[in-house]
Amino acid sequence: MSNIYVALVHYPVYNKRNESITTSITNLDIHDIARSCRTFGVKNYCIITPVATQHELLGRLLAFWQTDTARQYNPDRVEALELIKSFDSLESAIENIKNQEQSNLIVVTTTAKQRSDQISFQEIRSLKSAGHPLLIVFGTGNGLLEEIHQLADKVLAPIKGSSEYNHLSVRSAVAIVLDRVLSEEYKEE
Amino acid sequence: MSNIYVALVHYPVYNKRNESITTSITNLDIHDIARSCRTFGVKNYCIITPVATQHELLGRLLAFWQTDTARQYNPDRVEALELIKSFDSLESAIENIKNQEQSNLIVVTTTAKQRSDQISFQEIRSLKSAGHPLLIVFGTGNGLLEEIHQLADKVLAPIKGSSEYNHLSVRSAVAIVLDRVLSEEYKEE
Repeated sequence: MSNIYVALVHYPVYNKRNESITTSITNLDIHDIARSCRTFGVKNYCIITPVATQHELLGRLLAFWQTDTARQYNPDRVEALELIKSFDSLESAIENIKNQEQSNLIVVTTTAKQRSDQISFQEIRSLKSAGHPLLIVFGTGNGLLEEIHQLADKVLAPIKGSSEYNHLSVRSAVAIVLDRVLSEEYKEE
Repeated sequence: MSNIYVALVHYPVYNKRNESITTSITNLDIHDIARSCRTFGVKNYCIITPVATQHELLGRLLAFWQTDTARQYNPDRVEALELIKSFDSLESAIENIKNQEQSNLIVVTTTAKQRSDQISFQEIRSLKSAGHPLLIVFGTGNGLLEEIHQLADKVLAPIKGSSEYNHLSVRSAVAIVLDRVLSEEYKEE
């Protein structure tokens, strides 16, 4: 298992009017991203929300996936959802991971927008190869608040498609980023 | 725009007992995969189901995304969903694409399983670079029936993660395959 972590932030994120909001957790974000994390050997998938009732909801959902019924019905799903941890804030997730890891954690945020301070996928692969524990942070809604990027060590370049269109779902963005950072495919070339 | 097409097959696909079934179309498959297709310049996203009531449902959903309300509410989503076409069978989708394209269409199916007859991602990129129109076919449920692979020209290698775990969602698999085949990222190395 790698020392790579993924966080999905539900607060603070932008809505389409550039206001700071809290989004709801969604079942498909939980399942799809957990499956991608399990596929690429991510250590924990951290779900970030400050809302207590959302933690309760997530707790009930994850409790089902720890039952024997779930294990018989879909053991692969159990294996993926086991990676999930929930936190009230990104700061508390970072604190928790720093306590687990020996060497310095590097926090990398993601965005669909071009910025002046971004590292390339090549650079994040180099950080990984050098053995640094990495926390890769994704935003729901219309993306992470600027204060979250400020708190990070690095901001990752956006995924470029074949046009200016940059509206991937967060589920697709996580899949592509994990593939680019963690798969063997890049070594084949 | 490229001459690359994506198909999502709802029949015939396997269930977990290896029986042939028809799955339902789901809203998130429609949206997530359309957004990935739009990002990577896919020409059409073909949704395959033989069920008439599913075509009606899809028609109602797409009709909303052609209204002025939708265009004001979320123009990016309109742009993605415009790529969708629906067909009763994979054969009729292939027929339709062949009529549109000048040169020979190559049909490439995907699977999460290792087989003896698969082409690598490097090989599918070469086919694309050579200018061949490509139709990349994804299965819902537990994957495409063997008869669908037999009907294809090529079968693509599975996406390998860092273990034997191969249970990505079809939404994540489409995102990764399109990125590997169509993004510029591979040229950077």
